[in-house]
Amino acid sequence: MPASGRQRKWIIGIDLGGSHFSVGLVSTSGALQSVQRHRVAVADGPAAIIDQMREVIFAQLDSQGLTRTDVLAVGIGSPGPFDRKAGVIIESYNLQWFDVPLVKMLRERVGMDVVLDGDAISATYGEWWAGVGRGSRHMVGLTLGTGVGGGLIINGAVYYGCSDLAGHFGHMIIEANGRVCSCGNQGCLEAYASASAIVGRALEKPKELRRSQAWKEIAGESHRLTAKVLYQWARRGDGFARALFEETGRYLGTGLAGIIHTVNPEIIVVGGAVAKAGNLLLTPARQEAGRRAFKSAFRRTRIVRASLAENAGVIGAAGLAQCHFGNQRPGAM
Amino acid sequence: MPASGRQRKWIIGIDLGGSHFSVGLVSTSGALQSVQRHRVAVADGPAAIIDQMREVIFAQLDSQGLTRTDVLAVGIGSPGPFDRKAGVIIESYNLQWFDVPLVKMLRERVGMDVVLDGDAISATYGEWWAGVGRGSRHMVGLTLGTGVGGGLIINGAVYYGCSDLAGHFGHMIIEANGRVCSCGNQGCLEAYASASAIVGRALEKPKELRRSQAWKEIAGESHRLTAKVLYQWARRGDGFARALFEETGRYLGTGLAGIIHTVNPEIIVVGGAVAKAGNLLLTPARQEAGRRAFKSAFRRTRIVRASLAENAGVIGAAGLAQCHFGNQRPGAM
Repeated sequence: MPASGRQRKWIIGIDLGGSHFSVGLVSTSGALQSVQRHRVAVADGPAAIIDQMREVIFAQLDSQGLTRTDVLAVGIGSPGPFDRKAGVIIESYNLQWFDVPLVKMLRERVGMDVVLDGDAISATYGEWWAGVGRGSRHMVGLTLGTGVGGGLIINGAVYYGCSDLAGHFGHMIIEANGRVCSCGNQGCLEAYASASAIVGRALEKPKELRRSQAWKEIAGESHRLTAKVLYQWARRGDGFARALFEETGRYLGTGLAGIIHTVNPEIIVVGGAVAKAGNLLLTPARQEAGRRAFKSAFRRTRIVRASLAENAGVIGAAGLAQCHFGNQRPGAM
Repeated sequence: MPASGRQRKWIIGIDLGGSHFSVGLVSTSGALQSVQRHRVAVADGPAAIIDQMREVIFAQLDSQGLTRTDVLAVGIGSPGPFDRKAGVIIESYNLQWFDVPLVKMLRERVGMDVVLDGDAISATYGEWWAGVGRGSRHMVGLTLGTGVGGGLIINGAVYYGCSDLAGHFGHMIIEANGRVCSCGNQGCLEAYASASAIVGRALEKPKELRRSQAWKEIAGESHRLTAKVLYQWARRGDGFARALFEETGRYLGTGLAGIIHTVNPEIIVVGGAVAKAGNLLLTPARQEAGRRAFKSAFRRTRIVRASLAENAGVIGAAGLAQCHFGNQRPGAM
């Protein structure tokens, strides 16, 4: 039975990265039915890539016996900078996209409503809607990946700020004269707690690094050093790698204390690839935040690992599309 | 003509400090009609002080030919910690008050509705309602005094967070291993930009301080050194004092960059006694924030000096009472 407007029960979520995109079919209650990941052929240019998105969307609908009329809307989570309201990717050096009207181009290809939002905001919203943040009123989401992204839910709705730049917790300054960040500023949380910062900090201690097991694994080729190699060795008990993750956790906890004092959220959800280190990172982070923050605020803030792993972005992008087009959830502010 | 419930056009605002309280008569549109400041006789205990508040309230009403029935409600802005919902001052070492049910005690004495809120939140709300923040949607207020207080307006309403501790921007950490703060934590903005921190930082440079004009003014008695003496000499061109305020401005700007990246407000209003230093402080603060923050966010955020001076707290406390009892303004979240 083809669904009428009121019966559209499915939403498409797309998580757009620098080298891959993922397309998921999500129910209006936040359940992920299916998800597919595709490598982007950058050289083919935006039109070809957006054609590919269309193909993946319809292939997924077909496989579930669904059609376009079953779908409420499509939500895309993308790295910045982009113009959310215009639906335009302003620049992506990874994709080599500049001023690409992604929303318009995809809408024309699929004949569905499309909305664009941030990747970290989508992941945050996903965890709030269908993950570990469910039921909370005020939530902060952090995505520790190549950079440190963030999102902010206030009163059960995404808080965007006056120019769509709220929630960039990765660029809170925790060391006024500290490490240089990818944004050019000094001492940002991102310059300590992102995957690239963890590798950078390891390389800044060459003597200790050379004595670690991680160094042996990469046969002394520093370009092969990754945060993943380091946390795997931390997990296996390598002293250098363990100390590095403990220190990372303390920096993260310093940022968390600032978040607790300013946003006073019920829950802070930590996701992204670096969060796979789990308690190697979160235990020292909680200790440091507890040491630094007002006890009365710290006690009320749960600091937890994200629960939807790499699907948070797809689910959240779908949820934000439902916010935007479905009027079934609190609208965004 | 005695006013009926619907015609109550006046609100009482009280700004409670550690040594003084101020009582103001404020119109429901935010105009301050009169204000009186009184020294608190701490030794007399809470009941006597609250009796005095009642006397000042009725003296002010009398002087304007008004009675209790002209008053919508009383709002009190107080330093923490307090229980906003219960209306109880939990502890004030300055006042020697512990678990004082201020709201109940004052309500019984004046026969009017009373509500309690934070001093920095009241000052922030005052600037938003009737001061330089008027008409903005998302605003941050900072009060640079003995400490650094803050308040957060989101979507035109005070944002309290999950346990009434949001907006403590003074306890964002800007130097992970920096100066010890009054809260026991290290490297808080308050440990650099409060009046006491400015004095402390001056005393940490004894050689330069001794060569400054400020040192001559206080005849080398370091306990007489105040932020006021220092900014007056900064204004007169004393090199040491100027450099100190420039450095203070840079620390403040570091905190402002963090606020811009996380809250992305339209306007940040800087008040409190230290803000009297004006552009000696705000020019380097704006420069530092501009150097550190995303250009697109910085361009959209005005950083301005508070406009209501020491009356912001009284006016804001009255405004919050109107929020609470009058339903004439957006309610608080």
